[in-house]
Amino acid sequence: MSPGAPPEHLAAVVARIESAGAKAFVSRGLDRTIVGVIGDGSRMAELTLAGMPSVTTVLRVSEPYKLVNRQARTDRSVVWVGSGGREVPVGPGTFTLIAGPCAVESAAQTLGAARLAAGAGATLLRGGAYKPRTFPGVFQGLGKDALRILADVREATGLYVVTEVIDPADVDLVASYADMLQIGATNMQNYALLDSVGRQNKPILLKRGLQASVDEWLMAAEYVAQRGNCEIVLCERGIRTFETATSATLDLAAIPLVQRLSHLPVVVDPTHAAGRRDLIVPLARAAIAAGADGLLIDVHPDPENALVDGAQALAGAELRELASAVRQLPPMLGRRPALPRGEGAGSVRLGSPSS
Amino acid sequence: MSPGAPPEHLAAVVARIESAGAKAFVSRGLDRTIVGVIGDGSRMAELTLAGMPSVTTVLRVSEPYKLVNRQARTDRSVVWVGSGGREVPVGPGTFTLIAGPCAVESAAQTLGAARLAAGAGATLLRGGAYKPRTFPGVFQGLGKDALRILADVREATGLYVVTEVIDPADVDLVASYADMLQIGATNMQNYALLDSVGRQNKPILLKRGLQASVDEWLMAAEYVAQRGNCEIVLCERGIRTFETATSATLDLAAIPLVQRLSHLPVVVDPTHAAGRRDLIVPLARAAIAAGADGLLIDVHPDPENALVDGAQALAGAELRELASAVRQLPPMLGRRPALPRGEGAGSVRLGSPSS
Amino acid sequence: MSPGAPPEHLAAVVARIESAGAKAFVSRGLDRTIVGVIGDGSRMAELTLAGMPSVTTVLRVSEPYKLVNRQARTDRSVVWVGSGGREVPVGPGTFTLIAGPCAVESAAQTLGAARLAAGAGATLLRGGAYKPRTFPGVFQGLGKDALRILADVREATGLYVVTEVIDPADVDLVASYADMLQIGATNMQNYALLDSVGRQNKPILLKRGLQASVDEWLMAAEYVAQRGNCEIVLCERGIRTFETATSATLDLAAIPLVQRLSHLPVVVDPTHAAGRRDLIVPLARAAIAAGADGLLIDVHPDPENALVDGAQALAGAELRELASAVRQLPPMLGRRPALPRGEGAGSVRLGSPSS
Amino acid sequence: MSPGAPPEHLAAVVARIESAGAKAFVSRGLDRTIVGVIGDGSRMAELTLAGMPSVTTVLRVSEPYKLVNRQARTDRSVVWVGSGGREVPVGPGTFTLIAGPCAVESAAQTLGAARLAAGAGATLLRGGAYKPRTFPGVFQGLGKDALRILADVREATGLYVVTEVIDPADVDLVASYADMLQIGATNMQNYALLDSVGRQNKPILLKRGLQASVDEWLMAAEYVAQRGNCEIVLCERGIRTFETATSATLDLAAIPLVQRLSHLPVVVDPTHAAGRRDLIVPLARAAIAAGADGLLIDVHPDPENALVDGAQALAGAELRELASAVRQLPPMLGRRPALPRGEGAGSVRLGSPSS
Repeated sequence: MSPGAPPEHLAAVVARIESAGAKAFVSRGLDRTIVGVIGDGSRMAELTLAGMPSVTTVLRVSEPYKLVNRQARTDRSVVWVGSGGREVPVGPGTFTLIAGPCAVESAAQTLGAARLAAGAGATLLRGGAYKPRTFPGVFQGLGKDALRILADVREATGLYVVTEVIDPADVDLVASYADMLQIGATNMQNYALLDSVGRQNKPILLKRGLQASVDEWLMAAEYVAQRGNCEIVLCERGIRTFETATSATLDLAAIPLVQRLSHLPVVVDPTHAAGRRDLIVPLARAAIAAGADGLLIDVHPDPENALVDGAQALAGAELRELASAVRQLPPMLGRRPALPRGEGAGSVRLGSPSS
Repeated sequence: MSPGAPPEHLAAVVARIESAGAKAFVSRGLDRTIVGVIGDGSRMAELTLAGMPSVTTVLRVSEPYKLVNRQARTDRSVVWVGSGGREVPVGPGTFTLIAGPCAVESAAQTLGAARLAAGAGATLLRGGAYKPRTFPGVFQGLGKDALRILADVREATGLYVVTEVIDPADVDLVASYADMLQIGATNMQNYALLDSVGRQNKPILLKRGLQASVDEWLMAAEYVAQRGNCEIVLCERGIRTFETATSATLDLAAIPLVQRLSHLPVVVDPTHAAGRRDLIVPLARAAIAAGADGLLIDVHPDPENALVDGAQALAGAELRELASAVRQLPPMLGRRPALPRGEGAGSVRLGSPSS
Repeated sequence: MSPGAPPEHLAAVVARIESAGAKAFVSRGLDRTIVGVIGDGSRMAELTLAGMPSVTTVLRVSEPYKLVNRQARTDRSVVWVGSGGREVPVGPGTFTLIAGPCAVESAAQTLGAARLAAGAGATLLRGGAYKPRTFPGVFQGLGKDALRILADVREATGLYVVTEVIDPADVDLVASYADMLQIGATNMQNYALLDSVGRQNKPILLKRGLQASVDEWLMAAEYVAQRGNCEIVLCERGIRTFETATSATLDLAAIPLVQRLSHLPVVVDPTHAAGRRDLIVPLARAAIAAGADGLLIDVHPDPENALVDGAQALAGAELRELASAVRQLPPMLGRRPALPRGEGAGSVRLGSPSS
Repeated sequence: MSPGAPPEHLAAVVARIESAGAKAFVSRGLDRTIVGVIGDGSRMAELTLAGMPSVTTVLRVSEPYKLVNRQARTDRSVVWVGSGGREVPVGPGTFTLIAGPCAVESAAQTLGAARLAAGAGATLLRGGAYKPRTFPGVFQGLGKDALRILADVREATGLYVVTEVIDPADVDLVASYADMLQIGATNMQNYALLDSVGRQNKPILLKRGLQASVDEWLMAAEYVAQRGNCEIVLCERGIRTFETATSATLDLAAIPLVQRLSHLPVVVDPTHAAGRRDLIVPLARAAIAAGADGLLIDVHPDPENALVDGAQALAGAELRELASAVRQLPPMLGRRPALPRGEGAGSVRLGSPSS
């Protein structure tokens, strides 16, 4: 309350808090009175205490999300992607490489990229069928044809498919082809889309918005989880800052931070943060070292002729460097490769990660 | 090109530019070579010059939008909102106040807010039927019921209705009730939604995203215009910065800047930028003085009991201050009130604003 | 405290608070305990509560400054610049134009700029003798020669001199010539320099740092005031954001905000925020409308040949537009021109502004 | 040039470029003309092309620094800190841990911290004698007494001393005690201070300003180098963004980026970026993996009673984790520990690192 707040203003604040079923604790000081509030967070958000007379500051001290809060579960979660008893884990104890072309351009290009991805250690294939493009009038993806190509490539390679959906009306269609639905950074607060994927039973890859605080990102995840789908993997891909040397500023502190605040797995996309090929491998290494549960990487069999973002797709020497980092660094941090259930010596323990 | 770039790298760059039908102008210096490119912007965006050997920097020198570019029209545009020969203009020469409740809560509250709005000089009524809310689990609007209430209040007051649409599937429904469709800040790059409103024939109020540069905002407008709907009013509502004393940082330089870059009208929403009632009137005055074509203001008959954002709705003394600013300042800058066509002494000239 | 914090952690926190002479108020909730602290702000800052076991969040609810806090004085302050009974006020009730060349280049150029400034309504002359330049190796000012030129031009025109100081070792010298000492944005947290000007008896113009929150800006002012010099005028000049269309983003909400938080006057420099001439007049109008106590403007008799920042200096038609705004807008907001004491009909009341 | 620029405007631009001894290359397109300029960067910065008629955009394509530019030297540089033939390298091929207390509080605390630092692998001791503190009125360091303590602790432990200087007047004094002079983030553009340390012959640790782009950071280094001191180590410590969960956002892309742009070594301070202890080790690991040449870490023998920033000092289990990362990760990236010259098997090769 402001200094010199009259008793009736204080009483009105206390009354409003109590009317919402919460408790108010009043701390009176020489020049200032503090009112502590303990109650249900979402009802509190609807109290408009900020506008009441003599109220100067309203500060939240608990996190505005519950289902995705780490306090809801002692252990961090594993999200399984795929089907048929050969699902691939994303979460603690393992390290998952998701790689593929930014956009599906043709069957041959997608298969070529998938083979590069698998060769680098990927068990999940990314590939865009619907491309939200800032620049108006350019290539926006092959749509349903791309979905079919992705399904064929899954058949051919055993890699599960992660692909972006941008229109709520397409969610059922995309979910019928893909193994994991990606929500892009520009759609992190697209509530119609979040609502739609929240009612699906396919796992979600939720990218952080360029403008989103960690709290807002977790609130978007909560919004999805409230609709019944808790199989969410978060993806840090950089935030917008004043620095223009890179497309976005990768916020790697968000990795350990999210792992303390939430039980959800979190992976990193260094490709779109860097926006230039020569910075991707160092950022990928840094993401692994910061504790990421996986990486999302653009690869392309012919980057110079890519239709979308070719300047940031890996191939050749750089892809080999990435593969080497993905092989060597995670074990130093106590992580095994994220192989499909039933594969590899570590498979028995994959179901019960303990970190 | 990087210093010491070999001739074959330069030749490859020139060849790629020419293969896209553009012209390359090579400027050779002692340690560096610059290649100027003149060609169609959208095709150029698809050239991935940035990834080619010896290419160090790719800089754009022309704007990546055409239909909304001021070079496309000498005069700035007027967007007319409403129907029946009594449309209200938004654009040069006039000043338009758009006011109303953040969310439609009930018929009585909406009518009360509309009367406050009209009393303050508004000719357009804003009111939310669908509320995208960051905080999960809180009031999200009355939906179709709110649309009916807005239509009834239009009937009762003569104010045309501006309301937000958040799901592409709702665009037809919302357009059947509203006079202007608002795209909120979180949806500025929701391409499915932009596509849908771009195919409607109702005018659009396009808010700037919290993370969006002026160029990206105009590219979003271009995306809408490319689909056939050029009746777009831009709305500056603050960008996200490190300053947390306000909800967002209102970027008033964007007003004269947009008016130089584009022919589209531009209005300002100081309410959501400030996020606190006591800063709204000074920011509203500043927006008028910066040359805004109008204002978007939250008003509420009972702000303390508002369900959404009551802490920033105007009423009472502050609303009177706002009304006074809206009456006095625009005329000093050569603007008349934006009355419906056919009303007021200035009506004859409204059709051909010349500024 | 974190949920499940053991009683001994709570006891340790309370003990540390009390050991610093403050009061701790404990609010126990079902899953969380809040400890309110009431005590002396600067001693509290030295308690490292944030690092104690089970402490999850430490939030400040009162402002970390006292001398410059508006609560310290009911009225807003007027700072008087100049001497000999002909001082010029900066503060509530008046509007002060400070104008002149970015850098003093020669006696003729400075006198020319001063005459332009006076013609536009300025009563204070700005001009740089020492120029902190981001770009290494370029013109950095004439130093002491510039100070002499400024003093001569003061003699010739009656305009008092505002000039920047960048080295603590130069403060005495600069103060012996100038009427007001400017601290530039890059030096807002240069504590050696703040210490030095805090021990001078000349008024200070304290620019906001590009990275500084309003709170940090007021803390820098407090730092100066603690050393004995409370004659401080704040100057908003834009903050650094992701938007690159302008040099900085002018934060006009800071004007009414600072006027609520502090009793110090606050002026606006639109020139360096815009970084381009065509946006300066609209931003200057907006600053006046937002309630600024004055403006700081670059003028130059020959902008095209200016050694520093010529692209943003006003002259000709744009300067006339600015002069017209400075004449017409402040009276609408209850402000008179800031004439020297003893000049003009309003002079008697200048000593006791009441707003 | 703007579309439709008249020939005389183009001629004026070309004339001005040529008058500065540079070459202008004119590329004429259908609606736009581009003028390429090849010439000396610092003279170009003084051309105010931006303000000339019909000039719409001025873009720099080469970097505005020379001495610190990687093009000036094929190899990356090693900066040696210390004396007596036992200097410690900072640069490619080795990894240097700089650790110590944020502020020197007493001889015992400093010695205790130094022993912790040495135990963790540090060969350089950091410790603040002069503390620039945002919050006015709090502990600002012991000054000269702290310098003496640091010298004594160097004697006792063999660790060389890195300490911050904030006043140009103190540079000689500080240089007489310290082995490396630190320029803090708030002083990155304090040109009086940069000038003073640029004339010293002690190596410099130049922290990136919270608001500084990579280019501006390198320009500050260039400013120092122009004064004769090229022994500069850059230190990334986070930039200011909208995210408030951490004190600053660590920009790890800056590490590989700076190593491509400049030959100077670059280290990372995760402590002040995180602002909370539990994120420091993951960020330190990420910094190593991103390719940093070293780390700057706060350690304290009794963090809970530290006078400054105790909440972010490492000790106990977390310090052991850091030590383990510093031992294990750099060798995977081809780096040896940065031991004093003459120590260890690798010492012979330390003088000629080749990466």
